[in-house]
Amino acid sequence: MADSPRVYVLMGSDSDLPVMEPCLATLAKFDVPYEAKVCSAHRTPDEAAALSRGARERGVQVIIAAAAGAAHLAGVLAAHTTLPVIGVPLDATPLHGADALYATVQMPPGVPVATVAIGAFGAYNAAVLAVQIMALSEERLQRKLEEFKKDMVVKVREKNEQLQSKLKRPAP
Amino acid sequence: MADSPRVYVLMGSDSDLPVMEPCLATLAKFDVPYEAKVCSAHRTPDEAAALSRGARERGVQVIIAAAAGAAHLAGVLAAHTTLPVIGVPLDATPLHGADALYATVQMPPGVPVATVAIGAFGAYNAAVLAVQIMALSEERLQRKLEEFKKDMVVKVREKNEQLQSKLKRPAP
Amino acid sequence: MADSPRVYVLMGSDSDLPVMEPCLATLAKFDVPYEAKVCSAHRTPDEAAALSRGARERGVQVIIAAAAGAAHLAGVLAAHTTLPVIGVPLDATPLHGADALYATVQMPPGVPVATVAIGAFGAYNAAVLAVQIMALSEERLQRKLEEFKKDMVVKVREKNEQLQSKLKRPAP
Amino acid sequence: MADSPRVYVLMGSDSDLPVMEPCLATLAKFDVPYEAKVCSAHRTPDEAAALSRGARERGVQVIIAAAAGAAHLAGVLAAHTTLPVIGVPLDATPLHGADALYATVQMPPGVPVATVAIGAFGAYNAAVLAVQIMALSEERLQRKLEEFKKDMVVKVREKNEQLQSKLKRPAP
Amino acid sequence: MADSPRVYVLMGSDSDLPVMEPCLATLAKFDVPYEAKVCSAHRTPDEAAALSRGARERGVQVIIAAAAGAAHLAGVLAAHTTLPVIGVPLDATPLHGADALYATVQMPPGVPVATVAIGAFGAYNAAVLAVQIMALSEERLQRKLEEFKKDMVVKVREKNEQLQSKLKRPAP
Amino acid sequence: MADSPRVYVLMGSDSDLPVMEPCLATLAKFDVPYEAKVCSAHRTPDEAAALSRGARERGVQVIIAAAAGAAHLAGVLAAHTTLPVIGVPLDATPLHGADALYATVQMPPGVPVATVAIGAFGAYNAAVLAVQIMALSEERLQRKLEEFKKDMVVKVREKNEQLQSKLKRPAP
Amino acid sequence: MADSPRVYVLMGSDSDLPVMEPCLATLAKFDVPYEAKVCSAHRTPDEAAALSRGARERGVQVIIAAAAGAAHLAGVLAAHTTLPVIGVPLDATPLHGADALYATVQMPPGVPVATVAIGAFGAYNAAVLAVQIMALSEERLQRKLEEFKKDMVVKVREKNEQLQSKLKRPAP
Amino acid sequence: MADSPRVYVLMGSDSDLPVMEPCLATLAKFDVPYEAKVCSAHRTPDEAAALSRGARERGVQVIIAAAAGAAHLAGVLAAHTTLPVIGVPLDATPLHGADALYATVQMPPGVPVATVAIGAFGAYNAAVLAVQIMALSEERLQRKLEEFKKDMVVKVREKNEQLQSKLKRPAP
Repeated sequence: MADSPRVYVLMGSDSDLPVMEPCLATLAKFDVPYEAKVCSAHRTPDEAAALSRGARERGVQVIIAAAAGAAHLAGVLAAHTTLPVIGVPLDATPLHGADALYATVQMPPGVPVATVAIGAFGAYNAAVLAVQIMALSEERLQRKLEEFKKDMVVKVREKNEQLQSKLKRPAP
Repeated sequence: MADSPRVYVLMGSDSDLPVMEPCLATLAKFDVPYEAKVCSAHRTPDEAAALSRGARERGVQVIIAAAAGAAHLAGVLAAHTTLPVIGVPLDATPLHGADALYATVQMPPGVPVATVAIGAFGAYNAAVLAVQIMALSEERLQRKLEEFKKDMVVKVREKNEQLQSKLKRPAP
Repeated sequence: MADSPRVYVLMGSDSDLPVMEPCLATLAKFDVPYEAKVCSAHRTPDEAAALSRGARERGVQVIIAAAAGAAHLAGVLAAHTTLPVIGVPLDATPLHGADALYATVQMPPGVPVATVAIGAFGAYNAAVLAVQIMALSEERLQRKLEEFKKDMVVKVREKNEQLQSKLKRPAP
Repeated sequence: MADSPRVYVLMGSDSDLPVMEPCLATLAKFDVPYEAKVCSAHRTPDEAAALSRGARERGVQVIIAAAAGAAHLAGVLAAHTTLPVIGVPLDATPLHGADALYATVQMPPGVPVATVAIGAFGAYNAAVLAVQIMALSEERLQRKLEEFKKDMVVKVREKNEQLQSKLKRPAP
Repeated sequence: MADSPRVYVLMGSDSDLPVMEPCLATLAKFDVPYEAKVCSAHRTPDEAAALSRGARERGVQVIIAAAAGAAHLAGVLAAHTTLPVIGVPLDATPLHGADALYATVQMPPGVPVATVAIGAFGAYNAAVLAVQIMALSEERLQRKLEEFKKDMVVKVREKNEQLQSKLKRPAP
Repeated sequence: MADSPRVYVLMGSDSDLPVMEPCLATLAKFDVPYEAKVCSAHRTPDEAAALSRGARERGVQVIIAAAAGAAHLAGVLAAHTTLPVIGVPLDATPLHGADALYATVQMPPGVPVATVAIGAFGAYNAAVLAVQIMALSEERLQRKLEEFKKDMVVKVREKNEQLQSKLKRPAP
Repeated sequence: MADSPRVYVLMGSDSDLPVMEPCLATLAKFDVPYEAKVCSAHRTPDEAAALSRGARERGVQVIIAAAAGAAHLAGVLAAHTTLPVIGVPLDATPLHGADALYATVQMPPGVPVATVAIGAFGAYNAAVLAVQIMALSEERLQRKLEEFKKDMVVKVREKNEQLQSKLKRPAP
Repeated sequence: MADSPRVYVLMGSDSDLPVMEPCLATLAKFDVPYEAKVCSAHRTPDEAAALSRGARERGVQVIIAAAAGAAHLAGVLAAHTTLPVIGVPLDATPLHGADALYATVQMPPGVPVATVAIGAFGAYNAAVLAVQIMALSEERLQRKLEEFKKDMVVKVREKNEQLQSKLKRPAP
């Protein structure tokens, strides 16, 4: 993206891209410039700290961090910034994301991480939440969010129509 | 508070006040006008919906909702607004807040709840997160947040000194 | 179904139909007219509330609601009606339905949700429970339930015979 | 109660009475005659089966069963009747009611148990659910339920007023 | 088996046979006559009770019961006999056998179920445990158990040799 | 006890005695000579192995082992004997006995541990299960077990009478 | 301690001292000089990083880190050093240390944390593990460890004697 | 390996080799001679004890033990040695490694097991941790660890570049 990023989307590996795809697609849909990077709380701690510390100055308003297992990334980034940090717990260990959820949400007083659902649902919602936050001071995003909300109603109605047509067919 | 509220702090009962006290105290410390109300997703669903729908017009920027058990309050409020909604899962059932955590964080695509830690830690952090969000467009809050962050360092150092003096005493 | 529905079967998406199929098939088997709809506590909250509020007047006696994750649908419907609401927690997140179970069953005092098993077993049993409830005032259903119960005994015996014949064959 | 019981409230020990008190009080409040008995799926299986089998003939319409640990009581009763059976999982083992919840709700196809929340909340809601079921064919109960639902709104408002008066006082 | 059975192996469906196969094979290996039957605590409660009550008279010494979900079968059988009852929790619901484990092991005082591991490991071990119990009064089984125990050592050594030969090969 | 022990009751510390008291009391009630010892899988592994290996020769028929946390005692004893080993998981860590339950019950193929409920219920039931096992070849114990089972029915009836008298009193 | 520290014992607050006391006492008992400090992965991330990076140069050989909730401290320290880092998950949230355990143990490839038991048991064992590690290159510690291990046997025997004397007394 | 082993890598079956492969590969990469063996706490307890007791004398410095289910192997080995023992919980039962994790980490005071992550991540990290421990007294390993740590940074950067090139491609 040519524009200076307003959202950082950080993940531990390029192999997390498929599950984070809905996040990037949603930011793009709202025309929010973002920068996606691979970054690790444990393998590149200094780069993670530097990214977080420098984010505000670069115009970033929200940081989204996705991690699995002992998911420290969001918390480590939150330690180095006063920007809102959104954590997406990923399901990539035998504990199926319960470990990542606990390691992301149970932050100590003073350093919150705004935690969303485990996996792809959370990836999508991290983008929506970031837009909701930025929309507080940007009318354009606010209008888009209202359309988005109406669109959800339309989509549920369409799904309902699909359900009705499935129900009319004789059961297999 | 005389000023028009910028944050709603909603809880299921006045008996939730002690656990939510750190939330209110922290908003007050940052001079953020708030309105605290008892409101239930299940017992007063229409009032909950109305509060949420009318929040933006009243100048509210962030909604904080605390609930226990099948904690639907934050999700129900999020259904009726495009404002960011922060959910505080409370520990008030035999499942010790795991139920409230799951019921708050695992929201479906399109309707995020920014979930923080279970109980008093989360109550405190909900306020900090709300301030972080509002600080994106308010320089005064941003400066206060930076002081707040420095203050945390000072407090950890004080605790360290207390630890050192405890360690110097002969063990009991 | 031509008849006015006596049971609502609500689900969050038409993609839930396969897991809810046993519910619809069982209601059909008992000749209970039902209406199945896609409806979301979070994406179409007003339609959900309206459906629930209008159900009794349309002659509906039992509402069945299936949802996954932060499964608020049954609880939200229960908030708007005095009809019995049956909740079916679905297994569609990495937490394998434990989230949906907790979000469905742990309702606060005054607003119960009659919760059944996670997934297809629960979908089937939601229909049976609905019939048991309606059979209290309808002799026809009561007789059918008694046959149904006897039929279960017969089927277990058939399965036992199948087991015996499998056991007679030399093990592979 | 002099009247023939319309609800059975069965529990494993007289020591379960305190947690089941809200159930009995709520049934009494709705003027629903009930019979409360100690009865065990494991220690008095024949009496449990006999109670369940004879319930309908005695005019019972709903069976409520409360049990802890490997909570089989509700399931065992449901095996012997076509009446709706409501299960209340109790928190009386080190697993804090998660065992009782799973043992109550995860019933196999054909034999549902309408499960409510763990402990006292569930005890209360079991009675409300029983009344909701019986109200389908009894206008008097239906009217009472509607008053009950309005009353919940009033109580939430009272709690809100209490919260407001607490908030006006200077914090301690 | 022509001989009068000394062990009952009861399961909820013939579809449980594959997971229970190691149980039957192990009993056969020890030349212990058994009878395997489909039997349900919820769908055929009277037959389950009758089987259990009549077991001792038929010469049965141990009852093995396998069930999934709200796994009541072992507990229900234990209610009707003083024979040792071994419970095998099966993994056949979204909760992956945690429900069956809790519903089998957390029995109330006076009615124990000897619980073994979830799934096929437990199926195998239920047979070994049954043989250990019967071997207390049968020298033949005791000798076979000692060979079995020595055999396990041999098999571990064989596996070690296989490991060594795998390690010698160049890694792929 | 003067007689040669027929049951070993092993526990990790004398501080486990209170929770194991129901086990010892129940064995005493059935006049079964037992030997209770402190013994640790991790701190005295050689003594644990020796005790287990020598048990049969001393006339011991059943070994009961109680442990908390990474509860290896029952499994380690089972490794050294062909006697039935009963494991009692204790609740003495922050995980409330879920750790001890998993560490006791999930044994690998070939080395079963007959696991009973967590804590005092399991302590009591370990004794009952041991008696059920020994009763297979001892008529005296069998008769006592049948009385014990009838006694449970009497006690449930007494509890029911206590419940009835409590219910007659006006509620507080 | 006058000597240059060989072990760092880091904790999030001086209020963690009581649960970490067994750690310090055990290090002292083995005459291992240590330095205990309050230090937070989230509130003082730079000091935590600096401490960890400088540890080896100061002669530290093992770092012990205790934290609760989203327990990132051990992982963050491990990110900045090649010294072995031992993590002690603390039980200080409603999730009873399961959150701290998962957040400590589930580290990604390349950055291990040697995790010990939740709470005081783990605090004690962290010290023993540190001594075991240092004893590999220090004969004095090795000899002390062997005495320590023998001492455990003696203590279990003493506990056994205490059990025997308790058992001789008539039960209360 | 021709050299006398410095690390034992013990596992319950040769079928555990694939998940333990990263452990062996990492030790090989650091040129640390190891011996991998199949060994069971329950099926070959005497060989396990002997291996552990004899390890130090053979020059072994660290023992790595991998086990699933009621994972006693690491604890049993730790009971017989003062060497550091690293436990790798494996995911090979329906409880997905939560059982193995609890059975490995929750060791009683005096006998620690250094527990790493469940499954392949833990297998890899067990080797890294062993190298970190041995590097305390071996300069060569220390240098290699520092390269290893720098290499992780390089690899994260490479993954970031891969991410960037994936992002440049039009989404499918």
